[in-house]
Amino acid sequence: MATKGAMLYEGKAKKVYVTEHDDLYIVEYKDDATAFNGEKKGQITGKGQLNNAISTIFMEMLNSRGIPTHFVEKLNDREQLVKKVEIVLLEVVVRNVAAGSLAKRLGLPEGTVLPKTVVEFYYKNDDLGDPLINDSHIEVLELATKDITTKMEQYGRQINDILVDYMKQRNVILVDFKLEFGITPAGDLILADEISPDTCRFWDADTMEKLDKDRFRRDLGGVEEAYQEMLRRLGGVEV
Amino acid sequence: MATKGAMLYEGKAKKVYVTEHDDLYIVEYKDDATAFNGEKKGQITGKGQLNNAISTIFMEMLNSRGIPTHFVEKLNDREQLVKKVEIVLLEVVVRNVAAGSLAKRLGLPEGTVLPKTVVEFYYKNDDLGDPLINDSHIEVLELATKDITTKMEQYGRQINDILVDYMKQRNVILVDFKLEFGITPAGDLILADEISPDTCRFWDADTMEKLDKDRFRRDLGGVEEAYQEMLRRLGGVEV
Ligand SMILES: Nc1ncnc2c1ncn2[C@@H]1O[C@H](COP(=O)(O)OP(=O)(O)O)[C@@H](O)[C@H]1O
Ligand SMILES: Nc1ncnc2c1ncn2[C@@H]1O[C@H](COP(=O)(O)OP(=O)(O)O)[C@@H](O)[C@H]1O
Ligand SMILES: [Mg+2]
Ligand SMILES: [Mg+2]
Repeated sequence: MATKGAMLYEGKAKKVYVTEHDDLYIVEYKDDATAFNGEKKGQITGKGQLNNAISTIFMEMLNSRGIPTHFVEKLNDREQLVKKVEIVLLEVVVRNVAAGSLAKRLGLPEGTVLPKTVVEFYYKNDDLGDPLINDSHIEVLELATKDITTKMEQYGRQINDILVDYMKQRNVILVDFKLEFGITPAGDLILADEISPDTCRFWDADTMEKLDKDRFRRDLGGVEEAYQEMLRRLGGVEV
Repeated sequence: MATKGAMLYEGKAKKVYVTEHDDLYIVEYKDDATAFNGEKKGQITGKGQLNNAISTIFMEMLNSRGIPTHFVEKLNDREQLVKKVEIVLLEVVVRNVAAGSLAKRLGLPEGTVLPKTVVEFYYKNDDLGDPLINDSHIEVLELATKDITTKMEQYGRQINDILVDYMKQRNVILVDFKLEFGITPAGDLILADEISPDTCRFWDADTMEKLDKDRFRRDLGGVEEAYQEMLRRLGGVEV
């Protein structure tokens, strides 16, 4: 049992609440959607419930495969109980196929299968537009020790291997995804935040149809339907 | 002796010519100046001679300190004889003080002394605007082996140590600089291109006055005078 206390933080897609337990938070998933560093704003009906359900499936699956995550349990349609962490201000992006900013950065046509997995670190800082950074930038900003970033990259690659295979069985290509990690009060690095169509690119393996937030970013329509379809493929109960 | 043959390449600041020697090129320094990926164009009177003289001083100094460079000899006011290399399509930027794109990227005030040296790799590709890239991007684009990039970073840091000290004796702060490397026909990695106020940020240690291409980029005036002053501090003959 855990009861919602004061709201600690309202982000672009979720709210975080303290609970009566010192080491547990409640995360509430909103329908709000943003893109291009908050320049584009909107709502996706039902996204809160959908991402809560989808992220729950991914986190439980990763927990069961030995990846430590913040996920404790799904409380209801929009809420999750999670372990409290101090978020590392680095977003880890893992990519299998060129899309979005990578396609632009490297001049590769979107859809190019990458011969090697790409792992990137972005500085989690909305004011700066979440810039790509490298090891020496991380050192200068003291965002994490070398030990922590090495572990984050290792987890990122491990999670990628697990997810690529898992999605393939559901006829979905995992193009890329973004992870956040945090440090528990005990000092352990664990996966935090969410894994959902907001934070991943999913393409149908036959039609290459986009089943993720790019439908919102690029005004492709059928946004809610795409999130519903992803939940269906993951075997989740329709919400 | 070497005689200019066909022009091989005209860049933004220099022209490269073949010679009768299979392994030697002649580089001619132009007065043309560009900034912001070619968006801003202009001329700096005398820059060709100044940068030829300045780069000669730096390259000879580095050669004498054990850094392998492409520099063979200064031929005349605007021309240098250099070893032919295949340029690695990576620009190595080494930084001691936050300025320019780093100040923007990390949200640091220009002039912040960096607690650790920053080393960055940029993809040398004008069409893409020379984007910052990381190790996994380099792997995907096959721009260089891990062995080569490790060596480039090591040389970059070594050259920084040498130059910081050298400039300090001339009352100049070495803020940052860009290097290019190439592979000789024999397979050796050597420093190529130029070291000049076009490719370095130099600040007067007392007044913090800029003595480099930022005077051109930011329309500060006194551009030619700054390059002249740099040559003077390096003990070069005025041109
Ligand atoms: N277990 C956790 N403990 C503390 N903070 C978390 C945890 N999981 C996620 N967060 C943070 O809570 C916020 C979630 O809200 P979100 O709307 O995604 O924010 P943002 O606008 O930063 O993307 C994020 O800043 C995320 O880093
Ligand atoms: N030793 C060398 N051998 C072959 N190419 C070189 C050598 N040194 C420099 N270069 C290349 O010659 C060109 C120099 O011209 P420049 O005007 O600086 O070009 P850019 O417009 O690419 O900056 C650059 O592309 C540089 O990489
Ligand atoms: Mg978020
Ligand atoms: Mg150049």
